[in-house]
Order: sequence, then C-alpha cells, then structure tokens
Amino acid sequence: MYNFEFKNPVKIIFGKGQISKLSKAIPSDRKIMLTYGGGSIFKNGVYDQVKKATEGLNIVEFGGIEPNPHYETLMKAVEIIKAEKIDYLLSVGGGSVLDGTKFIAAAVLYEGDDPWDILAKSGKVFVKKALPIGAVLTLPATGSEMNGNSVITRAETQEKLAFGSPAVMPNFSVLDPEVIFSLPDRQLANGIVDAFVHVMEQYLTYPVNSPIQDRFAEGILHTLIEEGPKVLADRTDYDAAANFMWSATMALNGLIGMGVPQDWATHMIGHELTAYHGIDHAQTLAIVLPGMMHVRRKEKQDKILQYGERIWGIKEGSVDERIDQTIQSTIKFFESVGIKTKLPDYSVSEETIGKITKRFETRGSRLGEKQDIGPDLVKEILEDRL
Amino acid sequence: MYNFEFKNPVKIIFGKGQISKLSKAIPSDRKIMLTYGGGSIFKNGVYDQVKKATEGLNIVEFGGIEPNPHYETLMKAVEIIKAEKIDYLLSVGGGSVLDGTKFIAAAVLYEGDDPWDILAKSGKVFVKKALPIGAVLTLPATGSEMNGNSVITRAETQEKLAFGSPAVMPNFSVLDPEVIFSLPDRQLANGIVDAFVHVMEQYLTYPVNSPIQDRFAEGILHTLIEEGPKVLADRTDYDAAANFMWSATMALNGLIGMGVPQDWATHMIGHELTAYHGIDHAQTLAIVLPGMMHVRRKEKQDKILQYGERIWGIKEGSVDERIDQTIQSTIKFFESVGIKTKLPDYSVSEETIGKITKRFETRGSRLGEKQDIGPDLVKEILEDRL
Repeated sequence: MYNFEFKNPVKIIFGKGQISKLSKAIPSDRKIMLTYGGGSIFKNGVYDQVKKATEGLNIVEFGGIEPNPHYETLMKAVEIIKAEKIDYLLSVGGGSVLDGTKFIAAAVLYEGDDPWDILAKSGKVFVKKALPIGAVLTLPATGSEMNGNSVITRAETQEKLAFGSPAVMPNFSVLDPEVIFSLPDRQLANGIVDAFVHVMEQYLTYPVNSPIQDRFAEGILHTLIEEGPKVLADRTDYDAAANFMWSATMALNGLIGMGVPQDWATHMIGHELTAYHGIDHAQTLAIVLPGMMHVRRKEKQDKILQYGERIWGIKEGSVDERIDQTIQSTIKFFESVGIKTKLPDYSVSEETIGKITKRFETRGSRLGEKQDIGPDLVKEILEDRL
Repeated sequence: MYNFEFKNPVKIIFGKGQISKLSKAIPSDRKIMLTYGGGSIFKNGVYDQVKKATEGLNIVEFGGIEPNPHYETLMKAVEIIKAEKIDYLLSVGGGSVLDGTKFIAAAVLYEGDDPWDILAKSGKVFVKKALPIGAVLTLPATGSEMNGNSVITRAETQEKLAFGSPAVMPNFSVLDPEVIFSLPDRQLANGIVDAFVHVMEQYLTYPVNSPIQDRFAEGILHTLIEEGPKVLADRTDYDAAANFMWSATMALNGLIGMGVPQDWATHMIGHELTAYHGIDHAQTLAIVLPGMMHVRRKEKQDKILQYGERIWGIKEGSVDERIDQTIQSTIKFFESVGIKTKLPDYSVSEETIGKITKRFETRGSRLGEKQDIGPDLVKEILEDRL
C-alpha cells in the first residue's frame, strides 16, 4: 500500500424523508442561491420538499444548469451572486448541477484574472476558498455529493475539463433514495455504469497489496451488479434504490482509492467523446473501458484476472481467454442495463478518433496509472470500439 | 437499510515516515500537551520522531496514562492544562492514551459540576466542546484514531464507562505502520481481536438488506484473518502491518455501522470483566463473543450463517451444526493468535458472574441490537464461557 492522506468531512444525511432536515443543515443567516438543472425537480416533488424544508430562508433561484454543465451558464450565476451578495449555495439536482455549483462556489472567490484558469490550469492553479455548498442529490451516479471534484464543459471550444479541491466539498449532502422512483431508465442506467467505472478506475490497475481497498471495491461492484437491475425493473424498490445510491457515493468518495494506483484514462478519453458528440458521460465510459481492458491486458493482467474471478466467477482457460471472457462479461453487463458499448452505436466514426488523438497530441499529456498512455494508445483503444 | 447521518472529518496521514508531517498538521501558535502511556514510545523511537517533527513548538509532557485509562490520572492532566493554559492535545500512544486524551479534552471545557458525569450520565450529558486533539497512533486496535468514542475506568469504584461526541474526534491521526515492528505479541494479538470484534458488533445482528455494509465488514474480517497472523509471524512485514493497521481503523470509524443495527453487548459485558479482574479488553471480547453467538443463535441466525459461509466457508450441515461450526472457527481464530477464550483461562469463577449479573440488575440497562439482553441472559452468556 502506498502512503496517503485522507480527509472527507462531508456530512451525509441518508434515507427517506431526509430532505426535511435541510433547515437544520443550513445556517439561517445566509443568503442562499438554490441551483438546479432542467426542471425535473418541479415534476418529482423534490422542489416542493426543498421549499417546505427551507421556509423562512432567504433564497434566490438559479435554474438551467445543463448536463455537462457549461462554463458560460455558470458564469451567469457568478455575476448574480456577486451582485446580490449571496453567501451559500444549495445544489438541488444530479452530479452535473452539483459539479456546476462547485465551479460557481470557486469562481466567485477566485482571485486570479480569469476563472477559466481554475479548469484550464488545474493542477497549477489551486482553489483555496469557495462559498459553502449544501446538496440535495436527485440522481445517484457521479459521487460528486461526497467529494471535491467537478467537471465542466466550455461549449464555445468543445472542451470538457476537471478540477478538484477540498474547498468545494459539500458541507452536507442529503441522499433520499426515493428520488430514484421517478428517474427515467436512461438516467438510471447511466448512474449504474458511471458508478461502476468509477470503481474500476481505482481498482483495475496493478496490485500493491491492498486487500481492504480491493475488497471494498469488489463489494461496490457486486452491489451495483445485483441492485442496479432491481431498480431498473422496479423503480419503487426502496431497498434496492438505497443500496444503489450508497454504492454510487462510496464509489467516488476517495476511500477505495487511498493508497492504491489510479487510472482515469477511460474518463479522460470519454470526456472527449462527450465534448465532440454530446454523448452521455456514462455511455462514453461504457464505450472506452472495454477497449482499455483489451489494449492494456498485459499491464492490467493481474487485476483483470482478479476482477474476472471475484466478480464474474471466471476461473477457467488461458490467461488471454480469461481476460477476453472478463471483457465480454463487463460488456454484457453494460448492455444488459441498456447502455451500448460500441462507437457506431452512437454514430461515431474514425474521423472523431483522429480528432481526439490529435487533441491528446497537442496537449502532450499522458494518461493511465503509469502515465504511459500517449496518443497512439488512445487511437488503438478507440479503434477497438469501432 | 435504515436512515442515517454520517460525518467523519478526521484527517488520516497514513504510511511510513509520516510522523515527520506533524509540524504541518499542528497549528504553530498553540500550547500543546503531549500525552503518552507507560513509556514504550521512548524505546521504539516514536518519541524521538515526534520531538524532531515538533521542534520549536511549545510542548508540555504528560505521561503515565494506563491501559484502561484511569479517571483519577486524567483529572491530574486536566488540572495542569487549566493552570498552564494549554490549548492543544497531542496523543502519542495506543487507544488507551487516545481515549484518555479525549476525556481530558472534554473535561477541561466541561461546564457542569462534575466531569465524571460525562461518563456516568453519558447519553444525558452531551459533550459539545473539547480541546483540539492530534494523534500519533502506536498500536492498531481500538479505532479511536478515527472516531469520537472513549472508554474510561474509575479505579476507585471499579467502573468502566464510555462516552462519545464528534467534539473529541481527532483533527488528524498519523498512522505509521512501522510502529508495529516493535510491538509485543500480546498487544498485537489484542489489536487483531479487538478490531475483529468491532466489526462483529456492527455486522452480526440481523439482516436489513445492506449489502455494501455487509461486504465492507466481511472485507475487513477477511483481511484481519489473513494479515494478522502474518504480522505476528514477521513483525517487519510492512505490507501486512499496513493492511492490519488500516483494517483496525476502518473497523470502527463509523462507516460499516451506518444504516444497520448494532449490538455492542459483547463490549458491555467485557468491560465488566476488565473492571473486576483487569483482563485485557480484547481478551474479554474473545471470551464473551462465542457465548453471545451461542446464546443468541436464534436471534442472530441469518447473520451467523452468512458470516460462517462467507468468512469460514461453512455451507454443510443443519442450521445448528453450521452455527456450532462457525462459533468453533471463531474461537479457533482467536486462540490461533494466542488469545484464550474461556473464563477459567483467566482464573475467573462463577462468583464474578454473580457480581456482573448483579451490576446489570442494578443499572437496569438492557443490551444488544434489540435491547432485549437483561441480567439473565448476561448470566447465561458468561456461564457458557466457564
């Protein structure tokens, strides 16, 4: 196990009816911006619950934050916050609304010239302060409710970039599994695959003798495989919804990634597919991961075999046969929840592969747990998915 | 899964050489009391590392905190702190030193008449503020490094009582697995069994459909069973030491207990064995748990069978046979690391059982995940261990 530092102070308020605890969680003397997305919260009753729980608080509303939240949209919120002296953000939505809210929280207090640098110079520019954030989660998927990560898209330049800071971790997140009851299949399936691949990015690398982390990761994968289809089949199965929701949070709150190598190349390549074609984030992961496993079968061999055996019960055959079976089992699971895994399924052709490869060439960044995936391998991975 | 709230803001600084980060972790303007125990830190090099890392800081030392830390000892520290205007506590030791330090932190700022009420009226008196605490852990076992719990003994009255509050969670805990290299067998074995039973208290109850919590618990049990004996056999096996240390922390940082019933009757009964006979805490747990499993085999049936199958591979035989085998496997594991599991092994006779039963009668408290264990069952459980 590697040395590590871990701190996650987010308060999780979990369970049915917990939205009613909002008034206790938010300081009463704050001026609050309530951020939300496309308006599903008006249909599923969450908005009404939030309004009831925050009666008497001083709230300004800001809606219309897109899936893959746009920098351009978020900067409008930043202006309003500065003009109206707002000092607390309440995100009511899924991972996109929360990621967008995190960027707003950081941009308002950013002291540099251009808030875009928070994203464009991420890793060099470090976000030290941000407005406090509370969250009501309406879609289990990204884990954003219990971490300091945010992914933002600039529509103008088709760029999708990430930043992270402890300063944008929510003060609290309310996780009421009943929000799942009204989710459409596509969003739910996306959530299952998103959480699944979050685990894989921290698990499917190379062994460093970390049995606790491995078993926690495998525990989340097993739970997603068991409970995900239950929720898809019966949206009102509260237990399944709760188990799925807690899985998605645990998948990316930092814990299973402590002391172990992490990959994230599947995410980085997937972001480009979203940037160029607007493909749902989880769909891009379902496309890229099998290619990653195929092309990196040597480098990831030990962990792919462990994953195949412990998750899918694959024990027979040569190493290559077992790896092939394991990739097929993974693909079968993604397809079983309704997420296609090939580029042509999304009308993406070789032309896009060229553009993405070129972008990685220009950036000069290398990906993966050993930082040894350059543009050539990105091309190979994507070509495997044609 | 039940509704729950979870917040654990303790910063974990994990790995070899991490004690050197102390100076960054402690605010430089504080007057610090360094608390420690019987002096092992002078022999194993930890004291020297701490002194080097805290050079220039204003430190008063307070040693001699006992295993099962005594209220009487801790109140002496409280006096010194008040007299010398100390405003930060640095615990350098195992769970007893840290538990003692937590009580000190709470007692200094306690506004009631008698700080003993923090323990005697725990559940009614609530600790709202405490001095900040930093910790360097020298013995993996209690999980105290990542929670707000503390167990204190009053020597005068042979009482061992607990309290808990978020206010006494350490700001940070340094976990350097190399501290294990110099531990004697007995302390190490105690640590393994202590962590094991912490998991069991949150796992071996009744099912509430909580697959994530179950699998995390099982992951810790498996790791303790695998890595514990490795550390006992070769004290310099760093990987095994690290995995054991992280297991002990994860066993009692709250996570696996969220949304599920918890037992803790084994602890409550065990505390009385320590109070009357000074038996090591972990030893008392190894004595009581098999009796608890035997007497509560009906109430805990589903989880005992799950535990038996997933941890010990027990799948054959009638329900009672499988439960008996599972209890025997548990006993065998405790004995294999050198911890005896019967009362006569510790020269405890029926007379003590009478005294303990009487104490529970007087208190009128009922134990266990369903609060249905009264004095009669306590007697039955202990008689099973004669």
